Amino acid sequence: MEPNHTKSSDCYAADISSIREAQIRIKPFAQQTPVLTSDTLDSIAGRKLYFKCECFQKGGAFKFRGACNAIFSLDDDQATKGVVTHSSGNHAAALSLAAKLRGIPAYIVIPKDAPKCKVANVKRYGGQVFFSEPSMQSRVDTANKVLQDTGAVLIPSSNDGRIISGQGTISLEFLEQASYIDTLIVPISGGGMISGVALAAKAINPAIRILAAEPMGANDAFQSKSNGRITKLSEVNTIADGLRAFLGDLTWPIVRDLVDDVIVVDDKEIIQAMKLCYEILKIAVEPSGAIGLAAVLSDGFQKNPVYSECNHIGIVLSGGNVDLGVLWNSFDK
Amino acid sequence: MEPNHTKSSDCYAADISSIREAQIRIKPFAQQTPVLTSDTLDSIAGRKLYFKCECFQKGGAFKFRGACNAIFSLDDDQATKGVVTHSSGNHAAALSLAAKLRGIPAYIVIPKDAPKCKVANVKRYGGQVFFSEPSMQSRVDTANKVLQDTGAVLIPSSNDGRIISGQGTISLEFLEQASYIDTLIVPISGGGMISGVALAAKAINPAIRILAAEPMGANDAFQSKSNGRITKLSEVNTIADGLRAFLGDLTWPIVRDLVDDVIVVDDKEIIQAMKLCYEILKIAVEPSGAIGLAAVLSDGFQKNPVYSECNHIGIVLSGGNVDLGVLWNSFDK
Repeated sequence: MEPNHTKSSDCYAADISSIREAQIRIKPFAQQTPVLTSDTLDSIAGRKLYFKCECFQKGGAFKFRGACNAIFSLDDDQATKGVVTHSSGNHAAALSLAAKLRGIPAYIVIPKDAPKCKVANVKRYGGQVFFSEPSMQSRVDTANKVLQDTGAVLIPSSNDGRIISGQGTISLEFLEQASYIDTLIVPISGGGMISGVALAAKAINPAIRILAAEPMGANDAFQSKSNGRITKLSEVNTIADGLRAFLGDLTWPIVRDLVDDVIVVDDKEIIQAMKLCYEILKIAVEPSGAIGLAAVLSDGFQKNPVYSECNHIGIVLSGGNVDLGVLWNSFDK
Repeated sequence: MEPNHTKSSDCYAADISSIREAQIRIKPFAQQTPVLTSDTLDSIAGRKLYFKCECFQKGGAFKFRGACNAIFSLDDDQATKGVVTHSSGNHAAALSLAAKLRGIPAYIVIPKDAPKCKVANVKRYGGQVFFSEPSMQSRVDTANKVLQDTGAVLIPSSNDGRIISGQGTISLEFLEQASYIDTLIVPISGGGMISGVALAAKAINPAIRILAAEPMGANDAFQSKSNGRITKLSEVNTIADGLRAFLGDLTWPIVRDLVDDVIVVDDKEIIQAMKLCYEILKIAVEPSGAIGLAAVLSDGFQKNPVYSECNHIGIVLSGGNVDLGVLWNSFDK
């Protein structure tokens, strides 16, 4: 699964220029999140690890970068009627917050089974909530109805050039904060974050290895890469509520060409990584956010000789919106 | 309780010079911890808050700064036989880690009722543990016995110039990271941290207000300030296991002269602040570490007109070593 470096970035929905523009656009609003390190985790992983703490981003997750870029890209006529999305939570909260900052309405379709803290975030930021059934079809149908009723603009959570560009700003910051990184590990779901991260990182340093981390119970990216085409699953089953979406037509070409490999981990490994984040790093990371650490510690990574050259690994801790009860109850006590 | 600014720093156990020396001494080993902000917490507090995240310090608490300074201040002859301390946990872990970095033994007396995660930290860093009864007398007696048996050097947790100087490096960093801070709120127990923080901050900017945050059930500093002399309590009772010690003869004069006021909060307020740190800031803060936020949100602070001019408040989140079960079980579910 070698990436195809001959591909021109012209054919993608974003590129290093749109990512640099996004960085300027969101700079007044977004946090520059810190990078933490831990000798204890380095010794467990046998590598030097750098943690980009997007759990400290506005709204508690990286999603604010893309949402902010998308909303502040709209011209005034488009923006007036507001924005719509359907999301399991973090994109919804991020879009609500960005809309509030621009002073426009945000209509948010949320599946009924989303974590309570994520719904609370949406409401805190003034988003107007419409609950759907958990299925993707119900989410899409409900969003379409809201679109018709309001005339607002749809802002997808991943499959969108503005979103990809916003998420790509993570790489610009991260590689400035820790320039010796040779490998980046990024959670994959709809592919918006890893697409932006890969586009920016490979533009800055083509030798950087980009690895996706994906839960076993929602491994559509792994299957898509294996099959050479977008492969959707009939059902998903993972504790990582933020990683249940599938690649789209805009993110897939970037993932196909620029993501070097997909590391698949099970929920037990994700929970163990959450626990290490809490106990060692002292930060609240949601299951989706901890998957990068889970990937580095997995046998699939540790025992694969291909990765023996990965000595300085950047891990994106993508979000921290986890109900404490979920965290506590998922631990082996 | 106006501080006496006419006091010369000559009479204290540390000063801005010894603190700057400490900064150079510990720089190769200590983390420069990030400062986080939160619009949500700002709006709850009605002020701009800056959180100095010492929970991300090596060993999970600010204590590493002082321990590292003390251990690397020893000459080789002194250092060879190792170091001894008695501590409820964070100083013990910090001293073990600093001793490990210097390659000398650390003998640690820990009261039986210390949190498990703190004992685990000591062992992780190679400290040799001796359990005592919870009482201060038993801690001191056990430490004296170990001193006799080993010939090692006693490194107190607070009442020591090297420790005060090391903790003072917090101010040097904090005021560089957030120079507009007009008020610093610091947990108080033995007084080592607040002494160092106050000495450095007032040297840099004499107008900075220094407030101590103290638990109701261990309010010896409040009583000492009121009485104008060191006042010890016959018993203490608070969830903040790191704040149960009393001021000593070296920290008291600094607290007396340079700490503008002591804000006392109860355990319920501490728990609520821990919850906000977890849910909003996404960080694991132990009860002692959350007390600064509890103080800012307390009626004692919010309703006191004296504090209406405190607009840019720096809060030291002093440590993150909390058993997750303790956190979860202490919440109002």
